[in-house]
Amino acid sequence: MRQRRFGRVDNVLKEITPKSVDYSQWYVDVIKKADMVDYAPIKGFMVIKPYGYRIWEFIQAAMDAKFRATGHENAYFPLLIPENLLLKEAEHVEGFSAEVAWVTQGGSEPLTERLAVRPTSETIIGAMYSKWIQSYRDLPVLMNQWANVVRWEKATRPFLRTTEFLWQEGHTVHRTPEEALAETRQQLEIYRQVIEGELAIPVIAGRKSAGERFAGAVETFTLEALMGDGRALQIATSHFLGQNFAQAFDIQYLDEDGTRKFGWTTSWGSSTRMIGGLIMVHGDDKGLRLPPRVAPVQVVIVPIARGTDEEQQQVLAYARLLKDRLAGAQVRVRLDDRPEFTPGYKYNDWEMRGVPLRIEVGPKDLAKQGMVLCRRDTGEKTAVSEAGFESAVTAMLDAIQQSLLQQALEHQQAHTVAVENYREAEKYGHRGFFEGDWCGSEACADQLKANTGMTIRCLPLDRTPEGTGCVVCGQPSQERMLFARAY
Amino acid sequence: MRQRRFGRVDNVLKEITPKSVDYSQWYVDVIKKADMVDYAPIKGFMVIKPYGYRIWEFIQAAMDAKFRATGHENAYFPLLIPENLLLKEAEHVEGFSAEVAWVTQGGSEPLTERLAVRPTSETIIGAMYSKWIQSYRDLPVLMNQWANVVRWEKATRPFLRTTEFLWQEGHTVHRTPEEALAETRQQLEIYRQVIEGELAIPVIAGRKSAGERFAGAVETFTLEALMGDGRALQIATSHFLGQNFAQAFDIQYLDEDGTRKFGWTTSWGSSTRMIGGLIMVHGDDKGLRLPPRVAPVQVVIVPIARGTDEEQQQVLAYARLLKDRLAGAQVRVRLDDRPEFTPGYKYNDWEMRGVPLRIEVGPKDLAKQGMVLCRRDTGEKTAVSEAGFESAVTAMLDAIQQSLLQQALEHQQAHTVAVENYREAEKYGHRGFFEGDWCGSEACADQLKANTGMTIRCLPLDRTPEGTGCVVCGQPSQERMLFARAY
Repeated sequence: MRQRRFGRVDNVLKEITPKSVDYSQWYVDVIKKADMVDYAPIKGFMVIKPYGYRIWEFIQAAMDAKFRATGHENAYFPLLIPENLLLKEAEHVEGFSAEVAWVTQGGSEPLTERLAVRPTSETIIGAMYSKWIQSYRDLPVLMNQWANVVRWEKATRPFLRTTEFLWQEGHTVHRTPEEALAETRQQLEIYRQVIEGELAIPVIAGRKSAGERFAGAVETFTLEALMGDGRALQIATSHFLGQNFAQAFDIQYLDEDGTRKFGWTTSWGSSTRMIGGLIMVHGDDKGLRLPPRVAPVQVVIVPIARGTDEEQQQVLAYARLLKDRLAGAQVRVRLDDRPEFTPGYKYNDWEMRGVPLRIEVGPKDLAKQGMVLCRRDTGEKTAVSEAGFESAVTAMLDAIQQSLLQQALEHQQAHTVAVENYREAEKYGHRGFFEGDWCGSEACADQLKANTGMTIRCLPLDRTPEGTGCVVCGQPSQERMLFARAY
Repeated sequence: MRQRRFGRVDNVLKEITPKSVDYSQWYVDVIKKADMVDYAPIKGFMVIKPYGYRIWEFIQAAMDAKFRATGHENAYFPLLIPENLLLKEAEHVEGFSAEVAWVTQGGSEPLTERLAVRPTSETIIGAMYSKWIQSYRDLPVLMNQWANVVRWEKATRPFLRTTEFLWQEGHTVHRTPEEALAETRQQLEIYRQVIEGELAIPVIAGRKSAGERFAGAVETFTLEALMGDGRALQIATSHFLGQNFAQAFDIQYLDEDGTRKFGWTTSWGSSTRMIGGLIMVHGDDKGLRLPPRVAPVQVVIVPIARGTDEEQQQVLAYARLLKDRLAGAQVRVRLDDRPEFTPGYKYNDWEMRGVPLRIEVGPKDLAKQGMVLCRRDTGEKTAVSEAGFESAVTAMLDAIQQSLLQQALEHQQAHTVAVENYREAEKYGHRGFFEGDWCGSEACADQLKANTGMTIRCLPLDRTPEGTGCVVCGQPSQERMLFARAY
């Protein structure tokens, strides 16, 4: 197999901005120098480079397996949606119309009806479901689509908010509201499993307040994660749509009792935004730190041989042997034998790319048939012997996966504060998750946002009001809420 | 896992049009009744339903593994391309401008420059490569993208020609023309391996004549397949782009000798069109016939139990046992225990969907611990005993895979005729592949098309002129060509 390229030679010779100095600049420096993305020559669009795209493929594989195991099937619906379909669900169109990109010309002719580049597919899928679903025997319909969507955004940031992004969107139809709600919750749980299990990002699950719901949803469930700078990221959502879309698109079925009824629908989505979260949760001033399960390269072997040609050849041969043995143990391993770079350069290079584990081998290691394992997450070095080193490596990769989740969890817990009045958040510079009671009025939510830039991230599923009164108006508590400044 | 749905109950109770009566109608009947696609509410767009999409996933998996094994990496480039980029390569824009869909409005504002929905991505990728490539050390660049593209077509047909389709497009840059040409040929060979090996479609590999080349290519290689109605289908292409795009987009590198040079580029693509070929090559008047390697369901078990409830339960339990054992042997198996349908209905249903092998089990089979295997491709029935039936099944699946390729190859050979004058094709109704000599002039190619509707499909790689003179003008032979009416 041909040698893969890993971007420009001078990438990592340049410094990156420390997180503490300018977190936004740090983020941009890292994604560019780690060769994850580049800016496209169209405002708001990004190019996902192979190193970044490979992570997306690992996320896709993990999610797709869980979707399939729960009976979902993939399908593909059109990119372009006629305006009349988009207009059918009032709240939905209100929520999205400002963000739609319109195709008005096809080939040489102007179009009689303009076509929306899908911002999401409830409308086109709803139109098809109404054709396909006739009998209760056709239910449930459980479909998912891996696709690109376009939302015309003012301010964009690679992975976090881009005009075009890649995602999956699930769309299901059920006989009863209970079944649809159970589906919504099940998919939220699948997201949690993948985001915590593969990306090592701890999340808080909750309901969205009315003001933050998906346009057209009866209930929106969300997973919220805390980034390294204390801002929140909505990382996946699952929507119970009630009969709103079923009525708008006439999704009806003939029930066993012989009467026609509207179906109950759900939709749920997760996107390349997760990769942005991955970077912000785990990255440090040396660059990325990737959880082994989604790392394109899990182990890099760097041979350290100055001295004679013969000595260098021996070390290289030894490094190749170790590489082949790790590959045989299904480890994604790479030998960095690029002659033009020093070991020190290579260390920086692979640290920037977040490779979880580095193996250093030099003449001394060769002499005692050993090697040094160096962890990216802690910097810790361990000398191990060649005999059965594969299991030492795989065990350490598991340990790194766990340790990254643990570190992120500790950061999240250390930056989650319970307050009785939202002004208390001021002394934390509005950084972190804040928990407090809420009276349930949108007026208080609006005031919170106007005064602090913080929004209600969710009403956590495992919390109840503590009765201390609304953190904004002091009126009786209705809900326990989690609020924060968000991406 | 929840029961998957396979479309409408009345699907297969309706007759399908026989191939012999109306091949186009037969094709449409089959793809709809086998639940592969449906028409979208936008002219020229299709919805790929789960049963059709699953086949695409198998094709993707097979190709992606071969791309990766030859050092290619996946990436993702923007859907929308600024008009100025599209205009940079003159031939290219001339070839595609009539087919482009244009985005002219983003959100509330009209755009200052209209954006093309990508018809193919040479231009946007070329612009990025020119940024990324600096040194000979950065070469070769070997990238592939799985994506949707839009081409505004007048006449469309599901899978074969739709306004939007799914495909992969590879784009590479090399130091030398020899290396770029070798890449072009290597990717053509990968296509051949997947199309013959997985889809069981025999192909003829050749060069395109100048008039049939990809817009902007120096040389286009193609794989041509013969459909059931004797028309040709271009099923995959691989392009040597010379330095045309490198010059248009300034893709230069600093060579070892210290001078700046233009790279040599290639592109190669294959699409959901392959699924159309699959249907037309293997389908019959009962519906699809799917090669086991790409069949969503390889084996269906149909229990046949009239008689007492107890008897029915025993047969069902036996069928479940067989299903679990086949699943354990990595066979994609489905038990059709739908109570509302008769065995006869189920036979038709699964034959329509092209399931390669059916297992029938009734009380008699249960009594002698056996079953009957029924092949979709030949209708042949074989009684086998339960002991080690998994290997009998997997062996039969391999035999069906081979037999479908063999049947298709025989059809292709039986409908390939060598002629000395193109008028001889008349007595075959211009159905089939025709081989003949060509003087090499586009004038003759144009006359051929004008008089017969036949076009030069390719100049086969393994043929040489026979010296009988151009089949159109009789002038001295320059090339041996394959011509046909094409989709």
